[in-house]
Amino acid sequence: MAVPTQPPLKESKVDVLIVGAGPAGYMAALWLARLGINTKFIDKRSTKIFTGQADGLQPRVLEVFETFGFVDRALKEVAVGYEACFYEPHPETGRIRRVDKIPEGVPGISRFNGSVIHQGRIETWLSDAIEEFSGGKIAVERPFLPESLEIGGDEEYPVKVVLRKLPDDKAGPEQFGHKVQNGLYRQFEGDQNQQNGVDSQEDSLEVVRAKYVLGCDGAHSWVRKQLGIEHKGETTDYVWGVLDIVPVTDFPDIRKRCSIHSKDGGSIMVIPRENGIVRLYIQLREGAQHEDQDPVTPIISAAGEKEKPGKKGVRVDRTKLTAEHILATAQNIFQPYSLEVAEMHWFTAYQIGQRVATSFQKDERVFIAGDACHTHSPKAGQGMNVSMMDTFNLAWKVAYVVKGLARPSILSTYESERRAVAEELIAYDQRLSRLFSSKPGEIATEEFRAVIDRGSAFTTGCTVDYASSLLMDKPADAAAERYASPLATGLAIGMRLPDAKMIMQSDARPWFLNQRLLSTGQFRLLIFMGDYASVPALRAQMDGIGAFLAEPANSLQKLRDDGVLQTLLIHASRQDKVEWDDFPAVFRPRDERGVMDYWLVMADSGPSWHDDKTGEAYEKYGISKDVGAVVVLRPDGYVAKVAEPTVDGVKDIWKWLGRFVVGLESGATL
Amino acid sequence: MAVPTQPPLKESKVDVLIVGAGPAGYMAALWLARLGINTKFIDKRSTKIFTGQADGLQPRVLEVFETFGFVDRALKEVAVGYEACFYEPHPETGRIRRVDKIPEGVPGISRFNGSVIHQGRIETWLSDAIEEFSGGKIAVERPFLPESLEIGGDEEYPVKVVLRKLPDDKAGPEQFGHKVQNGLYRQFEGDQNQQNGVDSQEDSLEVVRAKYVLGCDGAHSWVRKQLGIEHKGETTDYVWGVLDIVPVTDFPDIRKRCSIHSKDGGSIMVIPRENGIVRLYIQLREGAQHEDQDPVTPIISAAGEKEKPGKKGVRVDRTKLTAEHILATAQNIFQPYSLEVAEMHWFTAYQIGQRVATSFQKDERVFIAGDACHTHSPKAGQGMNVSMMDTFNLAWKVAYVVKGLARPSILSTYESERRAVAEELIAYDQRLSRLFSSKPGEIATEEFRAVIDRGSAFTTGCTVDYASSLLMDKPADAAAERYASPLATGLAIGMRLPDAKMIMQSDARPWFLNQRLLSTGQFRLLIFMGDYASVPALRAQMDGIGAFLAEPANSLQKLRDDGVLQTLLIHASRQDKVEWDDFPAVFRPRDERGVMDYWLVMADSGPSWHDDKTGEAYEKYGISKDVGAVVVLRPDGYVAKVAEPTVDGVKDIWKWLGRFVVGLESGATL
Repeated sequence: MAVPTQPPLKESKVDVLIVGAGPAGYMAALWLARLGINTKFIDKRSTKIFTGQADGLQPRVLEVFETFGFVDRALKEVAVGYEACFYEPHPETGRIRRVDKIPEGVPGISRFNGSVIHQGRIETWLSDAIEEFSGGKIAVERPFLPESLEIGGDEEYPVKVVLRKLPDDKAGPEQFGHKVQNGLYRQFEGDQNQQNGVDSQEDSLEVVRAKYVLGCDGAHSWVRKQLGIEHKGETTDYVWGVLDIVPVTDFPDIRKRCSIHSKDGGSIMVIPRENGIVRLYIQLREGAQHEDQDPVTPIISAAGEKEKPGKKGVRVDRTKLTAEHILATAQNIFQPYSLEVAEMHWFTAYQIGQRVATSFQKDERVFIAGDACHTHSPKAGQGMNVSMMDTFNLAWKVAYVVKGLARPSILSTYESERRAVAEELIAYDQRLSRLFSSKPGEIATEEFRAVIDRGSAFTTGCTVDYASSLLMDKPADAAAERYASPLATGLAIGMRLPDAKMIMQSDARPWFLNQRLLSTGQFRLLIFMGDYASVPALRAQMDGIGAFLAEPANSLQKLRDDGVLQTLLIHASRQDKVEWDDFPAVFRPRDERGVMDYWLVMADSGPSWHDDKTGEAYEKYGISKDVGAVVVLRPDGYVAKVAEPTVDGVKDIWKWLGRFVVGLESGATL
Repeated sequence: MAVPTQPPLKESKVDVLIVGAGPAGYMAALWLARLGINTKFIDKRSTKIFTGQADGLQPRVLEVFETFGFVDRALKEVAVGYEACFYEPHPETGRIRRVDKIPEGVPGISRFNGSVIHQGRIETWLSDAIEEFSGGKIAVERPFLPESLEIGGDEEYPVKVVLRKLPDDKAGPEQFGHKVQNGLYRQFEGDQNQQNGVDSQEDSLEVVRAKYVLGCDGAHSWVRKQLGIEHKGETTDYVWGVLDIVPVTDFPDIRKRCSIHSKDGGSIMVIPRENGIVRLYIQLREGAQHEDQDPVTPIISAAGEKEKPGKKGVRVDRTKLTAEHILATAQNIFQPYSLEVAEMHWFTAYQIGQRVATSFQKDERVFIAGDACHTHSPKAGQGMNVSMMDTFNLAWKVAYVVKGLARPSILSTYESERRAVAEELIAYDQRLSRLFSSKPGEIATEEFRAVIDRGSAFTTGCTVDYASSLLMDKPADAAAERYASPLATGLAIGMRLPDAKMIMQSDARPWFLNQRLLSTGQFRLLIFMGDYASVPALRAQMDGIGAFLAEPANSLQKLRDDGVLQTLLIHASRQDKVEWDDFPAVFRPRDERGVMDYWLVMADSGPSWHDDKTGEAYEKYGISKDVGAVVVLRPDGYVAKVAEPTVDGVKDIWKWLGRFVVGLESGATL
């Protein structure tokens, strides 16, 4: 063994190291903070910066925010999309005019509609929640540049990462010469350091040994490069500009989402935002031209990916990438409507690059997420959302393994579940980009709207359907199809639980179920006992399940005590027609002091005194009130399994959990 | 003129001085902070203390919180009442059992239900909002003891108050010997100072000269005493205990509001609270006995009012005013159900005192509000609510006068409007107290529930109906009756506007109207233009009103520019069937930069793409879609006048506003 010639570097051990404080990193930190995991969270910039400057929030992400307790902050500030308009050139005059108006999103798919707000606000909500959950222990540490990453050696903390603490003045962003904030950043010194290797300031280095490393470091991902993972795909020659402005206009639909196809000037997407701001995506037709094999002047693409000289690419006249030029292009497309600017908040220009990483992990110890895995155009408003949902999928699994609650084999489901979403996203983006960049007449309005319509469901984030796996109990050949149990025909195994309003049995307060399914890290058995008051067999089954769950030797009981499993009873008898004492003690458990938990029994329907729309869950979920069902929800709210509401059904769930939950070996006490 | 023999005291001038930081004081400070009034806000205690320890929030107060932007904080934390149960002794066994179950409150009267939470949390929300609105300028200054108050002299700042800054150690509360926090406070030194006059520490005195003083200093109100106002009423011999506990019990309705009448043990009210806490109001029958003319051992009454020796009163065995004794009484009443305590958070005992001040103001320069005006039993959960609504009524009027926007004559409406509420409150409390303190069998269950039922509407706070006045345009003889204009038969002039869901014309987003009627201090003209798209006369009227309001010489236009008046157009044509350009420019105004206001036109009904319950406002308000109406809302959200939706109707409103708005003399430019 070599004798060290220098004093050893400062070392620390953490369960999880998160590299990169963007949406994917913040969501990972949020989950890990909530679940009490020892986490280090670093970023290379000295201050917040938004290379992506995303602004769209899917309904599904708002649902997730609700489970972490801060969706109300979002709802108070965001602009919400309810209507979408299509503008086309008039066949005779050539001037744009509205040709159609449709609902934005998919009415009824979620309680929330697609919403828009500055990425900085979203990161603030996440950051505040991380601070609250972790008691201030987890916060972004800046500016830290990772310099090397090795896997292996130590069995418990096998990932070794060397970090360099940068002086703050080297880590500030330098913007491309313009007084308006924009997305045209020069490379910053940190990036150079990463490319050029360690410099002489040894004293600023430190070593972190981690059980797991999450690379959430964006399209340029240093982590991805260390792992030797390729970012596969292509950069197209479409060039787009973005303006965030407070407009002065007589365009009548400026507060609606609009797709505008002009005759000769190109296309625009209009996205109304908070505080009177409107984002415009503007096709910059004359800015680009093909010049194969020639060096190109780099411009920043959608997610900050930089074109390298020497590749087949696009020459862009950089002098045209100004706010003034982009605005002039927009004004031309908007004719006959006026468009002036009262405030300009931000602008950028990008080329559409569509890439997916060839792998999302290495040795199931180092994972990449977000833009590090997938880059695409921002027009679908999906990047930030899919990035957050990547780590919302990943981080609870990592936490379970770190805590020794689940076997590491569950970690493989991260890539199997999220790669499909990334690929669907890229495919949608390709269709959308082609449409928006097409010349007028090339694509019929009908085809255009058909693509938008099909995309609407995808862009809500509510249609993600995870395939069969260790964590998804459905037939392997159902991967490409929606799969539902006959016991719950309205629920697809692999999809998130749709919401419904119910009544708390103990106090008659109405709740949306999602408000009670907080992100606590628990698996949940939703025990739908049907109309047990009218069906004697169901009452007997309820009592049987209650007795079974209460057996001290039952390891499900141990899971409940550990907080890994929560059992909720949702019945279909009317809340005001049944009695609290009807329910087995296991659903009215007492703590060690004897204080009862009053919040585990809900009724689908109540007396409707308060005009609330309850009594629809059984129908929506396709569960018979005479038969019932047990629905298993994962900690991330996805339906993982459905069983019958009997002791046998619960035993079946137990066996299934035993495949990946430690200490719950199948059948051990059956 | 006398030559001063001592150095002059430090002097400051403020528009408004608020004495006392309880619910009434906080609400006054909130309004004044929102309206930018130079305000000093003092309290005599060195720290927060809750002599009342109130916990109930009316639906109406939650509506008001929404207009200040923080109702979401409340909704996340409170316990909400949805069901009320009645327990009576079984005629044979004598043991209590449930005899009835009714909805709590009045279903549908508000979007909010009566809610319960610790007073300290409520004051925190108010305090945070005050800080935000005032930019930190307004905050409670402690401990300051007012020592003298004079009216007159200075014309602009006629109220002179001398304040003493106390050392912190003299202003802390000392609790009646018990380790559990309780409401049995000894008199504290500050009170003694107030009674004994100025002591020798001249250097700690300062003089505040104020335009207006608001005495929000509780049942003992020093301000009230300075004004020589009597607090008229009586203290009964009912003695009640209060326990805030986390119970261990098999009582099945412990998470519902319950009224329990036992056979021999007395009565209990059960009020479920946040975080598993339950408040119990417990009748202490054996604790009290009549001893006329004898000195009595003081106990603290509902609102902290102290019985003076020598009055007709009640002897209370002080050794029985312990948590243990109160709990034992409750356990006896609860039989056959068990009742033990896992956590005790607070307790108190009180006698029911019902009093109303003989006047609410002096010289329309010094006003009293809250417990300083009215004290009663806490069981109806009204004290904190009525106190907040007192200053919600008063403070905007004071702000208008301070700003020179309205004539001081409007200030007389504070007492005329709020005295009626106070008297109704006392009458309700007397009925309720008699019922609860009655012996079993004295009052029939039916009568008991009839009183509760009638009270339910009152205790929502939504049925307050202000009489005819300078600020309420209805016939003087309609004072005791609900009065509606034939143009809007569903709206009572004098009552708050009931809520309804609508669609924003510009972006199709659904809103509850109350979410758009923020407390900005503006009077609002809600211009209900009916189904103008189908009724040509209405379109002509709309254009006429638009043209009239836009005339530069029109002083209503000036009011709009000053932010005193907001005009909202609410039409009954379908949102998706009409065009943005239909609406007169005055409803789509541009600022000096040309940026349009997109938020002043709403549609009653939309395409219902998003499953929202819109399209009910016209029906609910009793406004014909073929006729329309203009509804004038005061800054506090009360309907003050209804006129026809024509230029003549608007001129009529103008004349009416001219009665009290400065610079809008009736007919000046007509």
